[in-house]
Amino acid sequence: MATAPKVSKTDGKNNHDAADEQADKEQQEAIEQIDEVQNEIDKLNENASEEILKVEQKYNTLRQPYFKKRSDLIAKIPNFWVTAFVNHPQVSALLNEDDEEALQYLTKVEVQEFEDIKSGYRINFYFDKNPYFTNDMLTKEFHLNDTGDPSSESTAIKWNEGKDLTKKTNNGKQGKKRSHEDQESFFSWFGDHGDAGADELGEVIKDDIWPNPLQYYLASEIDEETGGDGG
Amino acid sequence: MATAPKVSKTDGKNNHDAADEQADKEQQEAIEQIDEVQNEIDKLNENASEEILKVEQKYNTLRQPYFKKRSDLIAKIPNFWVTAFVNHPQVSALLNEDDEEALQYLTKVEVQEFEDIKSGYRINFYFDKNPYFTNDMLTKEFHLNDTGDPSSESTAIKWNEGKDLTKKTNNGKQGKKRSHEDQESFFSWFGDHGDAGADELGEVIKDDIWPNPLQYYLASEIDEETGGDGG
Ligand SMILES: [Ca+2]
Ligand SMILES: [Ca+2]
Ligand SMILES: [Mg+2]
Ligand SMILES: [Mg+2]
Repeated sequence: MATAPKVSKTDGKNNHDAADEQADKEQQEAIEQIDEVQNEIDKLNENASEEILKVEQKYNTLRQPYFKKRSDLIAKIPNFWVTAFVNHPQVSALLNEDDEEALQYLTKVEVQEFEDIKSGYRINFYFDKNPYFTNDMLTKEFHLNDTGDPSSESTAIKWNEGKDLTKKTNNGKQGKKRSHEDQESFFSWFGDHGDAGADELGEVIKDDIWPNPLQYYLASEIDEETGGDGG
Repeated sequence: MATAPKVSKTDGKNNHDAADEQADKEQQEAIEQIDEVQNEIDKLNENASEEILKVEQKYNTLRQPYFKKRSDLIAKIPNFWVTAFVNHPQVSALLNEDDEEALQYLTKVEVQEFEDIKSGYRINFYFDKNPYFTNDMLTKEFHLNDTGDPSSESTAIKWNEGKDLTKKTNNGKQGKKRSHEDQESFFSWFGDHGDAGADELGEVIKDDIWPNPLQYYLASEIDEETGGDGG
C-alpha cells in the first residue's frame, strides 16, 4: 500500500512531533483498511457480474427453441428477410438494387452470441441456390480477445463469373437503369474488418432486427398505404 | 394482426387464382404464428430483465455494510474527499479555489441507487460545521419517471451572509488572489437541473469515484513526486 498523501494546506508546520506521528500512523492504518474493504467490494462486483452472466446464458438457452420455431415459420414466407432489411432505415441505406435482388435468395438469418456473451457473436446468412455466388451460407463473426481487442472474420464469397456485386465495374447487366451507380454493395460488409469493435450493420442486425424481425417485415404495409408507387 | 405485405417484385401477375389464395392464406397463418412466438420471446426477455434486476439488488444490499465500513474509515482521514475530487481530472476542472476550501469540510459522501435501480439515484454530501453554509448535508437526486423523463432535485444551500460561492460578486475575500476569477462554482451544480438525464458530475461520482474513491485519494502521491511545487 502507498502511504498517505501530505495534506499541506491544513498543516503549515514543518516540525513533526509525536502527536503528528501518531496521527500519521492512524491515517496510514485507515488507508490500509480502506484498501482491504475495497478488495471485498471488488470481489462482490465480480460475483455480481458472474451471476448476471449466468442469467443471460440461461435465457439465451431458453430463447433458442423459439428462435428455431421462428426461423421455420419465416422460411414459409417468400422474401421475408429482404423485406425486413428494405424496411429497416439503416440497413436499407446499405442496399443497392442488385443487393436487393440477391437478398431475395436469403432464407434464414441466425444470430449466435458466444457462450460467455462478452467475447462476441456470429451472424449466419443462409441462401437458396442463386445466380450470384455458390456459397449456401455466409457468416461474419466478431470476437473480443483476452485483452479486449476486437476482430472480425467472415466467409469468402465465391462469386459466379461477372456476378461479384462488390466490384462495381463487374456488375454487368447492360441496359439496366441504376439510380445509385456507385453505391457500395451490402456484400462488401463481409470483407470489411476495419471497425470490428463497433460494426454498425452487425450491431443493427443483432440488437435491433434479430429481437423482432417481424415488425420490420410488416412495416412495408404502412409504406404501401401511405406512400405507394401506383404501379 | 396485420396482413402479409404484397411481394410485388416476385409476382408480376394480377390475376389471383386458387393456388395464390392458398399461398396467401398460409403466409398469413405463418405471420400470425411468428407473432405468437415473438410474444413468447418478449416474455422471456422481460423475465430475464427481472432476474438481472434482482441480482443487482441483492448485490447492492450485500455491498452496503462495506460502504458503511469504508465511510467510517474515510472519516478518520482529514481532507479525504476534497483530495479525491482534486485528483479526479473531470471533477477538478469544476473546482475553483473557494470550492476547494469549502470541500475541506466534506466528511462523507453517499451514493444511493433507488431500489429498482433504473429509476434513479441520490448523492448525499455530509459537511462539518463550516463558515460557508449552515446545512450539514447537501443532496442531489436524479429520477426517471414512469414515462422515462429525467428530472433532478436538490437541497437549497443556506449560505452564510456574503459566503455564497455561486454568486461571483459576493465572494468577498478582498485581497485574495484568484487565478480563475470567473470560474463557476462546484456548488452551482446543486441548482443546475438542466441536464438531469445525463448529469456529468453526478455520473462521474456515481460510476467512477464511488466504486473506488481510494485510488483518486492516493493519486495525489504520484502528482507530488513527479510534479511537486517545491514549497
Ligand atoms: Ca506535521
Ligand atoms: Ca398473385
Ligand atoms: Mg430465421
Ligand atoms: Mg464515505
